Amino acid sequence: MKLKIGIAGYGNIGKGVEKAISKCPDMELAAVFTRRDPEKLRVETPKIPVYALDEAKELKDDIDVMVLCGGSAKDLPEQAPKLAALFNIVDTFDTHSKIPEYFAAVDKAAADKTAVISAGWDPGLFSMIRMMSQAVLPEGENYTFWGRGVSQGHSDAIRKVEGVKNAVQYTVPIEEAVDKVRSGANPRLSARQKMKRECCVVAAEDADLKKIEEKIITMPDYFADYDTTVTFITEEELLKNHSKMPHGGFVLYSGSTGENRHVMEFSLKLGSNPEFTACVVLAYARAAARMAKEKNFGAKTVFDVPLSYLSPKDRGTLIKELL
Amino acid sequence: MKLKIGIAGYGNIGKGVEKAISKCPDMELAAVFTRRDPEKLRVETPKIPVYALDEAKELKDDIDVMVLCGGSAKDLPEQAPKLAALFNIVDTFDTHSKIPEYFAAVDKAAADKTAVISAGWDPGLFSMIRMMSQAVLPEGENYTFWGRGVSQGHSDAIRKVEGVKNAVQYTVPIEEAVDKVRSGANPRLSARQKMKRECCVVAAEDADLKKIEEKIITMPDYFADYDTTVTFITEEELLKNHSKMPHGGFVLYSGSTGENRHVMEFSLKLGSNPEFTACVVLAYARAAARMAKEKNFGAKTVFDVPLSYLSPKDRGTLIKELL
Repeated sequence: MKLKIGIAGYGNIGKGVEKAISKCPDMELAAVFTRRDPEKLRVETPKIPVYALDEAKELKDDIDVMVLCGGSAKDLPEQAPKLAALFNIVDTFDTHSKIPEYFAAVDKAAADKTAVISAGWDPGLFSMIRMMSQAVLPEGENYTFWGRGVSQGHSDAIRKVEGVKNAVQYTVPIEEAVDKVRSGANPRLSARQKMKRECCVVAAEDADLKKIEEKIITMPDYFADYDTTVTFITEEELLKNHSKMPHGGFVLYSGSTGENRHVMEFSLKLGSNPEFTACVVLAYARAAARMAKEKNFGAKTVFDVPLSYLSPKDRGTLIKELL
Repeated sequence: MKLKIGIAGYGNIGKGVEKAISKCPDMELAAVFTRRDPEKLRVETPKIPVYALDEAKELKDDIDVMVLCGGSAKDLPEQAPKLAALFNIVDTFDTHSKIPEYFAAVDKAAADKTAVISAGWDPGLFSMIRMMSQAVLPEGENYTFWGRGVSQGHSDAIRKVEGVKNAVQYTVPIEEAVDKVRSGANPRLSARQKMKRECCVVAAEDADLKKIEEKIITMPDYFADYDTTVTFITEEELLKNHSKMPHGGFVLYSGSTGENRHVMEFSLKLGSNPEFTACVVLAYARAAARMAKEKNFGAKTVFDVPLSYLSPKDRGTLIKELL
């Protein structure tokens, strides 16, 4: 019996989940749910039914795990508690500071369902490495660097600036800081010392470029705390050279046992951020189904899931091939 | 209530476990067990009782988790099933090819105890990354490189060659292969293409150096399949420059989602292999105690343990600080 997966939200991650399901022999896509008009949504996989998200309740018994692919700012806080009352769910909620309250809301809703939240790469795989490193070596320091990669949130923020037609923002780790951390020096680093922000901006005709640049680099939260560069390019150039969504980064833990130093490092170089994120969340869908079968209900994070639950392989095979 | 830890075997790893316990506020060293004469064993920590390993049964109720620090060749296959019948145990059994039968023997013995086997860095942390990578990205290739570091097994093998007084063997990854793998080329690599072996050898006076070198580089299993270099040094030089036990290596997974490539890499640079291994196995001792409390008995591997069980921190703190 294949796991029946539902996709809630057919954006970049939703499409990535659809693509990833086709590589998993133990899963099948059962349905796509959208807030748009279901009649007008064209889904890649043939013969997959599309429903309005509001109708999801009707399919309560036909979906083993619902993969929530909406945004963390507005979609997930509203959708996750509702859907976790009806389905086993997984999501990629990534507003780090709001995870505790989000967790509590989903946990309350998931009375007899399993809900794995924040299962992407950060939060997600990077969190696992941070946690595991600290548990193994209590004396040490964790560093997380993101990039080089496109930040959707920052790109969106630029697009809202007056006179901006389109924009892509790259988060770029600062080599000097990376080298210092890798050397085991355990430096204290400010946000500005760790990474810089490169903005590729398409301005409207006759826009005041000086003013746009000023608006961007002084924008609080998003850019003011970083060294930010703004480069104006044409729409053609943006589409041609900046339409992929690469990302990556690394977690480095530098610790010690007395006089001996130890460095652990986990890095990702991703050709497509949404497609990779989709693969992670889908592996956790497999885990959610298994935990639900064991009646291990409520909200879960990547810290709660035994790693073997991510794999379709049986225990003996995992031990033989990968231990 | 602190976890009462027993150490079975007071070699390099056993001493590392002792040192690591002192950094864990939730644990205390309860006793050391040895096959040597307990009267003659001097333990670093003051007031720690030392018992003969054969007496372990008497302390059945005084130890929460026994950490087995013996060797994989002879000690563990004999000791682990016996001790797993009496105690929750953890070990670092690292003969990859024999893990399935070892697992079965320990599993059978641990009827009402929890036994986490093979919990070091490889097998152990590297296995976790191999497993997790493949589960996330089913289309891809796993590569494991070890070194630069000292291999005890290979050093021992050299010491048995006639005319050799002392020796240290370094396993060294071959840069060219590493670069090829990192580029995402997914090459097929033989053992010889992946790593070479550097031997620092102290010869006995009047020994035939040519003959020693020949014996080493043609030794089946250990050296014949690798490009091996032999350098003769003095005992003083060996003690001065080669008495630390650094090690490390990395696991690289190169996979794809259709046209997009993704690379995951986890690397370790360890100042002391036995001390780091001891830290890993001790974190799994914490997990073993918790699984035993949940009556989750039998043999376990790193694939079976939820990551949060490795940490002394509570769930809310882990989510807030590390997710």
